[in-house]
Amino acid sequence: MVIMTTTSSADFQPVLERIAEEMERTPGRGRPADYIPALAARDPRSFGMAVAEPDGTVYGVGEWREPFSTQSITKVFTLALDLAREGDELWEHVGREPSGNPFNSLVQLEYEQGIPRNPFINAGALVVTDRLHTRTGDAAGELLAFLRAESGNPGLDFDEDVAASESAHGDRNAALAHFMASYGNVDNDVPVLLDQYFRQCSLTASCADLALATGFLARHGVRADGGRLLTRSQAKQVNAVMLTCGTYDAAGEFAYRVGLPGKSGVGGGIIAVVPGRCTLCVWSPGLDERGNSVAGVAALDRFTTLTGLSVF
Amino acid sequence: MVIMTTTSSADFQPVLERIAEEMERTPGRGRPADYIPALAARDPRSFGMAVAEPDGTVYGVGEWREPFSTQSITKVFTLALDLAREGDELWEHVGREPSGNPFNSLVQLEYEQGIPRNPFINAGALVVTDRLHTRTGDAAGELLAFLRAESGNPGLDFDEDVAASESAHGDRNAALAHFMASYGNVDNDVPVLLDQYFRQCSLTASCADLALATGFLARHGVRADGGRLLTRSQAKQVNAVMLTCGTYDAAGEFAYRVGLPGKSGVGGGIIAVVPGRCTLCVWSPGLDERGNSVAGVAALDRFTTLTGLSVF
Amino acid sequence: MVIMTTTSSADFQPVLERIAEEMERTPGRGRPADYIPALAARDPRSFGMAVAEPDGTVYGVGEWREPFSTQSITKVFTLALDLAREGDELWEHVGREPSGNPFNSLVQLEYEQGIPRNPFINAGALVVTDRLHTRTGDAAGELLAFLRAESGNPGLDFDEDVAASESAHGDRNAALAHFMASYGNVDNDVPVLLDQYFRQCSLTASCADLALATGFLARHGVRADGGRLLTRSQAKQVNAVMLTCGTYDAAGEFAYRVGLPGKSGVGGGIIAVVPGRCTLCVWSPGLDERGNSVAGVAALDRFTTLTGLSVF
Amino acid sequence: MVIMTTTSSADFQPVLERIAEEMERTPGRGRPADYIPALAARDPRSFGMAVAEPDGTVYGVGEWREPFSTQSITKVFTLALDLAREGDELWEHVGREPSGNPFNSLVQLEYEQGIPRNPFINAGALVVTDRLHTRTGDAAGELLAFLRAESGNPGLDFDEDVAASESAHGDRNAALAHFMASYGNVDNDVPVLLDQYFRQCSLTASCADLALATGFLARHGVRADGGRLLTRSQAKQVNAVMLTCGTYDAAGEFAYRVGLPGKSGVGGGIIAVVPGRCTLCVWSPGLDERGNSVAGVAALDRFTTLTGLSVF
Repeated sequence: MVIMTTTSSADFQPVLERIAEEMERTPGRGRPADYIPALAARDPRSFGMAVAEPDGTVYGVGEWREPFSTQSITKVFTLALDLAREGDELWEHVGREPSGNPFNSLVQLEYEQGIPRNPFINAGALVVTDRLHTRTGDAAGELLAFLRAESGNPGLDFDEDVAASESAHGDRNAALAHFMASYGNVDNDVPVLLDQYFRQCSLTASCADLALATGFLARHGVRADGGRLLTRSQAKQVNAVMLTCGTYDAAGEFAYRVGLPGKSGVGGGIIAVVPGRCTLCVWSPGLDERGNSVAGVAALDRFTTLTGLSVF
Repeated sequence: MVIMTTTSSADFQPVLERIAEEMERTPGRGRPADYIPALAARDPRSFGMAVAEPDGTVYGVGEWREPFSTQSITKVFTLALDLAREGDELWEHVGREPSGNPFNSLVQLEYEQGIPRNPFINAGALVVTDRLHTRTGDAAGELLAFLRAESGNPGLDFDEDVAASESAHGDRNAALAHFMASYGNVDNDVPVLLDQYFRQCSLTASCADLALATGFLARHGVRADGGRLLTRSQAKQVNAVMLTCGTYDAAGEFAYRVGLPGKSGVGGGIIAVVPGRCTLCVWSPGLDERGNSVAGVAALDRFTTLTGLSVF
Repeated sequence: MVIMTTTSSADFQPVLERIAEEMERTPGRGRPADYIPALAARDPRSFGMAVAEPDGTVYGVGEWREPFSTQSITKVFTLALDLAREGDELWEHVGREPSGNPFNSLVQLEYEQGIPRNPFINAGALVVTDRLHTRTGDAAGELLAFLRAESGNPGLDFDEDVAASESAHGDRNAALAHFMASYGNVDNDVPVLLDQYFRQCSLTASCADLALATGFLARHGVRADGGRLLTRSQAKQVNAVMLTCGTYDAAGEFAYRVGLPGKSGVGGGIIAVVPGRCTLCVWSPGLDERGNSVAGVAALDRFTTLTGLSVF
Repeated sequence: MVIMTTTSSADFQPVLERIAEEMERTPGRGRPADYIPALAARDPRSFGMAVAEPDGTVYGVGEWREPFSTQSITKVFTLALDLAREGDELWEHVGREPSGNPFNSLVQLEYEQGIPRNPFINAGALVVTDRLHTRTGDAAGELLAFLRAESGNPGLDFDEDVAASESAHGDRNAALAHFMASYGNVDNDVPVLLDQYFRQCSLTASCADLALATGFLARHGVRADGGRLLTRSQAKQVNAVMLTCGTYDAAGEFAYRVGLPGKSGVGGGIIAVVPGRCTLCVWSPGLDERGNSVAGVAALDRFTTLTGLSVF
């Protein structure tokens, strides 16, 4: 917890530029996700990064205003929105422990009687969406409204083509949802739930949008307009879950290299939080074998090294 | 990462005293481990807590000078000692990811071909001890010498009765060791390895001893005498593994409540690290169902709440 | 393989009557399946039993002409119908080994990449139905036509209420189907497949009907009208799979107690085969904890003991 | 259950000779087990086969008098010897169901709390040996005395070199034994149990010896000297367990191809039983990927096809 005490806000821009330069020199950058065409088509060498301060100031570099498919990153926001509504009751339906297994494993779900290990594996995210949908009647709409408000970008939207592609390749998620339904841990009809879930995954946003939208986690639960979404304790819960479970089966390595609460998506984006200080979003479509952006993890690693803004 | 900017060193003592008072008023405190007599005999209401600053100043409260059975806490030191010697090669033999399963599960070990998930589940600690023993010829002796030096307490020692009890109830660990040996991930003879392992678990020390001995992790790898044990990066590795894997199957909850790298033992002790700032050890023998000290977790929770010295 | 060499056909009737008397004196008889109303409503003390000889002669006792819900018993006929069409290619999509796990476990399916262990666990039966449906365009219709022809009972039919109930409680089967689809081991749309599957399970027939319909397995593959459904080798395959996998997680115990190829259903029916000699069907709705009819297994046990018509 | 009604005893010799001729023409025959030198050194093209009638008449072909390493085949005799002593109580410590997993899997053992699925997986055989050793004080000696008596060959003995090799590669079995001990399902000290177990595996015998020694299972429990070892019901139990669990993870395929109770060993031997009629032993060291003798299974397949002496 070395603090960059001498760093004023203005220091973020040169740091970002230095990182962008370094990334440009790095050769291989993994491969984009290829299970749906919209993801496979992205250039693995694309790179963008943004930092937002709690007051809404944003710094950026590279393609930091280019929209990309957020995918699992939205799981953080859906979690926060549901937690804000139902509080600790949520934790009776989904755990907070790392999964120790590939993110879509059914084995553990069976072993634990339909209660997913955490809200960031697919099974857990399905439960969160299911519960939010029951409470609001429109989980995806709720998510969209929140992201538009926090990012200040009213143009944010779902990509219906991506949602349709996800649905066409959605058998594993359908299996998870039906399986949990067999344990009574799903309220809505499975097709309704899946439709909600795949739409959320399809949301398109830029690094700037997401760094801003994540701001409430740096502000200990307070939204951009000063209203409170989460209690301080709930914001801490979300950050802790991000640090221990946010990067699929690589949470340990991410903790070691980056040392920040983070959440990745197979679209190549990663958001990260320096509580009280700033939020980040980095994007580069090339993934490692665990589904995390290669350049994204490297850039965050460099960021915490250069600024000392790491947890450890 | 809110920093207790106004807290000078002298502020730790009143914080500890306030926590001790609160703990005294808390009724139930779990049950001591009962699988060996030496642990079962301890009073679950015992409580001690110590904080050590990087310069060796120690603050304490309650039974902070009372020796107790360190058990799994020693896994941190063995890991550091081996990592200092062999570096990243270690990570080919043991992973760094949370296990997502009870700490002595064989299932995952079989699934992953004899490579334990991390150095803090029993299987992983056996591998680390095995490797350290191969390198030094006396893993337990190495550990003891290190702890005596760092704590400044030459009286530290193993409890041979506890070691014998562990050995008598050691079938599960013997199974783990033989199982990994069948995959070629154990160098020494299994009985030799088990003897080394059980002796380490039997080490007896106080909160003061352990808070001091953990100091190298707050000093980014530097020992009490100014010599370097670990590189800064390696110290970060150890801290990250502690945060994500240090409290058995409750790492997620510990991260949320305490928000510090920590490691617990079934003797009721827990060590924790505020990198750059201080190290802690708390002890109370009553355990929750996951094997962590009830009052110990509560006290650390209070400490980070009162001081703001939490990661999130 | 002691043969009842002195038993002429006429000897079956007194054997059946003796068994029925004994069953009447037996007190507890398990509990009917209760997951759907139609099964839960049946009287656990109902009992019927029929024996059919290869030439179509039928003997019966008790409620042997009472229709009941066949449930998993139909898996035998669907298997035979598909095997007749595609032969050994089927075994690339479903195994022939006992499952060693509860009949609807997803763990094993994940471990074996979407290939079910055998055609009698639910996952395997779904695959068989899927393949038969692809080949015929109407798997359920094909099954119904076959059973009507072999039993000589044109009144046999599905129970649409039962099929609807199954569907309403079908999340586990839906999960299995989607899961296998994610591995590419399902051809049809999952809802289409499930509809086909649940209709088959809902077929209503009596002991007399089923004993006759099973006749082709005693006739080494030859149908009631003399036409050949299966090669001799294929009939042997089906019998072997019945013996090793026909009674859920109790195949070993069934082999020991009864010693005949058999297949049970949660409606309380069990069919069994004495190759070359006769086929049996027994029905009593009270189930043991593994899902097999208590009185049904006991009656078959008595039958093989009294007649010597057991394999071992 | 077609019976070779026209076959008199004298018919076995030409059948064996025909099979031996066919086997000679078959090209590839798998690979000998290579985990210990004594097995790896055997010629995969070796072939011997013997049939014994209940009265002790033996027929043989090829290397039917050549001693080989019996390995897991002895599990049948140890099971019978223990069952004779303790009866059904044994089944509280080991199951009778197929395992559905590779024969030395720890996963299932953990899932079922230290109770092995059946007496023929290694874990189950360890339990049987442990119990027999507790009852007799010398499980291996008991086994040896029994085999000498039943085969009429006082020269039968263990191969201490093989036992030592097994022990040197015995980590997996040691893990199983310690693991079950941790559940309280092992009475003796693990090293004592392993010594007993490895000695049994090392027993050397010929096809003639083993066909004769298996005779009690064709005689429904009666020993060669007319004394009774097992009740008729217990003999049936052993046969049923052989059919459903006797060939590792290939019991279903063995049931289909051979259709007889059988037990294989990685030394390349297989014993089989035609209850009431005869017993067989075939030997050829080349194994398939599941650990069963390639030529052995093929020869038994031919035997049941040529004689009609199959169960189905």
